Amino acid sequence: MLNFEYKNPTKIIFGKNTIPKLAEELPKDAKILMLYGGGSIKKNGIYDQVKATLKDFDVEEFGGIPANPEYETLMDALKIINEKNIDFLLAVGGGSVIDGTKFLAAAAKYDGESWDILSKPVRILEGKALEFGTVLTLPATGSEMNSGFVVSRRETKEKLASGGPGLFPTFSILDPEVIKSIPKKQLANGVMDAYTHVLEQYMTYPTSATLQDRISESILQTLQEVSQPLLNDDYNYDTAGNFMWCCTMALNGLIQKGVPTDWAVHAIGHELTANFGIDHARTLAVIAPSRYRFAFEDKKEKLAQYGERVWGITEGSVDDRAEKSIKKMEEFFHSLGIDTKLSEYTNDYEGISEKIKNTFTERNMTGIGENKNLTPENVKEIVEMSY
Amino acid sequence: MLNFEYKNPTKIIFGKNTIPKLAEELPKDAKILMLYGGGSIKKNGIYDQVKATLKDFDVEEFGGIPANPEYETLMDALKIINEKNIDFLLAVGGGSVIDGTKFLAAAAKYDGESWDILSKPVRILEGKALEFGTVLTLPATGSEMNSGFVVSRRETKEKLASGGPGLFPTFSILDPEVIKSIPKKQLANGVMDAYTHVLEQYMTYPTSATLQDRISESILQTLQEVSQPLLNDDYNYDTAGNFMWCCTMALNGLIQKGVPTDWAVHAIGHELTANFGIDHARTLAVIAPSRYRFAFEDKKEKLAQYGERVWGITEGSVDDRAEKSIKKMEEFFHSLGIDTKLSEYTNDYEGISEKIKNTFTERNMTGIGENKNLTPENVKEIVEMSY
Repeated sequence: MLNFEYKNPTKIIFGKNTIPKLAEELPKDAKILMLYGGGSIKKNGIYDQVKATLKDFDVEEFGGIPANPEYETLMDALKIINEKNIDFLLAVGGGSVIDGTKFLAAAAKYDGESWDILSKPVRILEGKALEFGTVLTLPATGSEMNSGFVVSRRETKEKLASGGPGLFPTFSILDPEVIKSIPKKQLANGVMDAYTHVLEQYMTYPTSATLQDRISESILQTLQEVSQPLLNDDYNYDTAGNFMWCCTMALNGLIQKGVPTDWAVHAIGHELTANFGIDHARTLAVIAPSRYRFAFEDKKEKLAQYGERVWGITEGSVDDRAEKSIKKMEEFFHSLGIDTKLSEYTNDYEGISEKIKNTFTERNMTGIGENKNLTPENVKEIVEMSY
Repeated sequence: MLNFEYKNPTKIIFGKNTIPKLAEELPKDAKILMLYGGGSIKKNGIYDQVKATLKDFDVEEFGGIPANPEYETLMDALKIINEKNIDFLLAVGGGSVIDGTKFLAAAAKYDGESWDILSKPVRILEGKALEFGTVLTLPATGSEMNSGFVVSRRETKEKLASGGPGLFPTFSILDPEVIKSIPKKQLANGVMDAYTHVLEQYMTYPTSATLQDRISESILQTLQEVSQPLLNDDYNYDTAGNFMWCCTMALNGLIQKGVPTDWAVHAIGHELTANFGIDHARTLAVIAPSRYRFAFEDKKEKLAQYGERVWGITEGSVDDRAEKSIKKMEEFFHSLGIDTKLSEYTNDYEGISEKIKNTFTERNMTGIGENKNLTPENVKEIVEMSY
């Protein structure tokens, strides 16, 4: 097991009818900016629930944060924060709104150019960001209980990540009932996103971190179990609750402690979103199988372990079981209604592998993955295997 | 899944050679009281390692905190805290030292009679205790990452629990290498203690909290896996690390969220320690099988699930599998070198069931367990089943 440090101070408030608890968690005299996305919370009643709870607080609003939160939009929100002397941010939304809020929490207290936080990136230490809380409306990214975020910049087609121990939400309210009104396609994306978060922290090489492996496998199995009822059956609170808690646990830092992590699937997938606007979760389904086949020799032991423990694949050599495991994984993605080839999303992919290779080279992204040996040239191959 | 709140702000620093990191975690100008137990840390080198790290700090010492920390001894430490204006406590020890330190952290800031903290008990809120950190020298209780504690009072033969959100350690240093010098009997107690912590939060009735169940099973399986090499083989860092992390994860609050919990085994076991001085962990081995047999109808579904997932018991009816599961559990305790009958620890048990029944009645401990239906009369029966 590798040495690690773990601290996650976010208070989770989980369950039915928990949104009114907001009033107990917000600082009494704060000037609050409530942030949200494209307005779905106005249709599903969450906006009204939150506003009712906030009636005794001093609240400004900023709506319209898009999926893959845009730097340009967020800079408009930053103006409001500065002009209105906002001292607490309340994100009401999914990963995009929460990620955007984290960027703003950091930018509000950052002296230099805001974009530096992402481009350098600047690690945001404790006390170096505005305080913020979240009301999660779309389980997927785990952003509600971690300290990382991703922001995109349209003009340069960049999608960059940053974070730091100063960016944990003070609290996050997780009411599984928000799932009632989420379109099935978004739920499928959520399952896919959380599943890949686990894979990035698990599908490396065998280590001695036995408990971490088993917890990762527990999340994968539970996501598999909930996915069909979640996507095909009528709304069920327990299914929703298990799905929601899996998404949080998949990326709250716990399962990555003491183990190597990959994150190459995300790094490459981000480029597909930046270039084609493909949903983040779906880019992961396109890249993951090719990434694992590309590094088959490095990952086959862990692929076989995954196959055995998560899918019950016990027959054949390690190589056989590892290959069967990738196939099972692809079938699972298909069962979510998610395609796993780039050509199923766009006809316009010619030259993209070269372009992504060049982007990785420019950004000095060489030596990524758990063995720090994935070159831009390898990334090009992986993208081509995904066509 | 039940509604829950979860916040655990303790910073874990885990791994080889992490004790020197103490210097980065302690507040620079604090007046520190270092607390420890019977002196084993002076023999195994941990005392010297800690003192070397503390050389630039203002440190007082208080040694001699016994197993099952005694109120009387702790009151001596409280005098030092008050006289020397101590503002940070550093526990260097196992669960007893850490539990004692938590009591002191609370008592130092509590206005009333110190014993009230345990006898009422008083829930200690954030900001209502001295800050403290820990260097864990004996994995078992999980106290290093939770906010509860247990203290005994010799004169009244009481062993009582208290705690609250103000009693999380600020940091805990977990170096698996401390395990090198721990006697095998203590390691067996540690496995037993952690295993029962999981059982208390798991062996109730089936709920829809699928992920929590699987994480609990992951800890049980990992403890089973490490126990034989831990107890019988030469020291191995990875075995030690997995054991240590299991003990912490077994009682850091995570697996109890959203599920019913029992804790009757602990409540009854505490009385065996208070009356006979039997090691805490061993009292759990005496009580657990009888507690599960006593509530067989309530718990059989979960016992069968445990048997199937943790021990691979798939044959027979639910009743058969549940009974086989209890037998497997007993065999596991025996494999640790731990006896499971009270008569194997003392000849002096006549009348103890009646005495414990009366104690439960006096303390108004009726309706314990996950169904809140265990009466003092039932407790008497369970104790008698354990003879």
